[in-house]
Amino acid sequence: MTEDELVTAIAELTRREHSRVQVGIGDDAAVWQPSRSNRSVITTDALIENVHFSLEWMSREDAGWRAMAANASDVAAMGARPRLATVAFGVPPSGTPADVLECYRGMEACACASGIEIAGGDLTRAPVWTIAITAIGEVRPSNVKLRSGARPGDVLAVTGELGASRAGYLCLRGDVELPDGEADAAIRAHRRPVPRVAEGRWLGASSNVHAMMDCSDGLSTDLIRLLRASRAGAVIEDVPVAASARAAAHRLGIDANRFGLAGGEDFELIASVSPRAFSHLAARFKERFGRTLHRVGRIEADERVVVVNEGREEPLERSGWDHFA
Amino acid sequence: MTEDELVTAIAELTRREHSRVQVGIGDDAAVWQPSRSNRSVITTDALIENVHFSLEWMSREDAGWRAMAANASDVAAMGARPRLATVAFGVPPSGTPADVLECYRGMEACACASGIEIAGGDLTRAPVWTIAITAIGEVRPSNVKLRSGARPGDVLAVTGELGASRAGYLCLRGDVELPDGEADAAIRAHRRPVPRVAEGRWLGASSNVHAMMDCSDGLSTDLIRLLRASRAGAVIEDVPVAASARAAAHRLGIDANRFGLAGGEDFELIASVSPRAFSHLAARFKERFGRTLHRVGRIEADERVVVVNEGREEPLERSGWDHFA
Repeated sequence: MTEDELVTAIAELTRREHSRVQVGIGDDAAVWQPSRSNRSVITTDALIENVHFSLEWMSREDAGWRAMAANASDVAAMGARPRLATVAFGVPPSGTPADVLECYRGMEACACASGIEIAGGDLTRAPVWTIAITAIGEVRPSNVKLRSGARPGDVLAVTGELGASRAGYLCLRGDVELPDGEADAAIRAHRRPVPRVAEGRWLGASSNVHAMMDCSDGLSTDLIRLLRASRAGAVIEDVPVAASARAAAHRLGIDANRFGLAGGEDFELIASVSPRAFSHLAARFKERFGRTLHRVGRIEADERVVVVNEGREEPLERSGWDHFA
Repeated sequence: MTEDELVTAIAELTRREHSRVQVGIGDDAAVWQPSRSNRSVITTDALIENVHFSLEWMSREDAGWRAMAANASDVAAMGARPRLATVAFGVPPSGTPADVLECYRGMEACACASGIEIAGGDLTRAPVWTIAITAIGEVRPSNVKLRSGARPGDVLAVTGELGASRAGYLCLRGDVELPDGEADAAIRAHRRPVPRVAEGRWLGASSNVHAMMDCSDGLSTDLIRLLRASRAGAVIEDVPVAASARAAAHRLGIDANRFGLAGGEDFELIASVSPRAFSHLAARFKERFGRTLHRVGRIEADERVVVVNEGREEPLERSGWDHFA
């Protein structure tokens, strides 16, 4: 049973006849209705030492930042504005109060940068550092973006270059050596990924954006989830790969596109955009955020996913992370 | 540094100048305002294998139930109606998809019984079974009950007898032997504690209830938290102790009141009630729920806490659980 199959079984087990939850298990976040004109989104994401991060390669402050970033990113991917978070925090036997506060400083720094207030939490002993965060965001009903809205013909876009976090991870492990400048950029991308909070809200406000999700498990894995939810396929023509990731791929003798497709934890957003509106939207995006909204490919009615590599079409392999595969 | 001191340091670190959070770190749940006439409460609570429960003594289904019950109880203790939950779920290397679904069945059973919909979650590998749940509830602004509202002269009350969960735990560990009927009741109280969801909402709706919290770490520990928040003291005259807990205390040669005061995980609610209204409220409570609202003692202006035991006054020792002491 894969992780996605298990999630489907859980969704089945927890399904209710008359639900106030408009979007439940299976999207980046759940959507519910606290009052008529408001929608809240809620998401939860756990970071566990030696599963998601190692304190050999990052500080507790970095781990706290990353945990908060993952949640802020999920809220942003719904087109919502993150507002609140709670933290269920597990401290190993060796952990001191000073260690706990160090981790909280990282969470608070990312929360501040993302417009989130830490509203409460739970503190407990655990075998390893365990940071389970729940974030809540607000969104107008019309701005909610799901995974399921992609339409054939849409332009498939991402909000930034991919692969830097993975390159940073490989640098830290000593699996690859990069020149100082590139290594620093990659390591920073791994330790302090920036969730696309303002970008998500801005894209959410456009009716030309039909679907959105974040790219936390790698574009290849997450894109397949978006396409499955939309019952569509895609042709991937151009993967924007970060310079550090290109350099790492080159040194490892791996195709750079493949490296970019597989690398997770970049927290860029994937958006499916009306083809007629894309150029104008991308220009306004550039003006607003000083960054490129990269055209990656297009959505197809046919449910297969192909990558065009040097003129040849290859089926996309799901190469990202699966906790249960 | 104790757990409570660490929580205070975290509250300091995450404090904001202009906050939308009306009650933050330090109560059973945080309160925020999704729209003008609504308040939402949000709470998070993690259960970790071999810290909070052992699969030697309960099934995965029981562990799921208990994790959900702890969160439902925190929402109820604010006077709110639980509505939604998300689950960050950690699965050990030995855990199978069937094990995950078994645990989810327990969570869903308690969620159903508590009016909660499981709206989403996160699934990851972890060193041990880790269940971090966040629950959200709704409440009218006037019905929110905090820890800080207790007033000198108030009647201190609890919604049920204490100590059964601890007696069940001791039975399961083989530390005490009880007759079958009492052992069964105690073990059930330990494995499937019932959060006082309807009772919390009902007490929340009364303006004569000035403060409320749940009793998850033991009455002695939790009462001290309530009194500290209210800058008050208390005299405890009568602790309602469950029959199984009395029997266990007797066999262990411990004072039954002391056993009832120390035993956590009962999930009864502690309420501070206007003295003139108490008799009438308790009668209506009995009528409504078929249970006794027990008078435990009274709130005093003087900030010490004393237990009256066979006519003698003794200072209350904080005897419950502290993860960081």
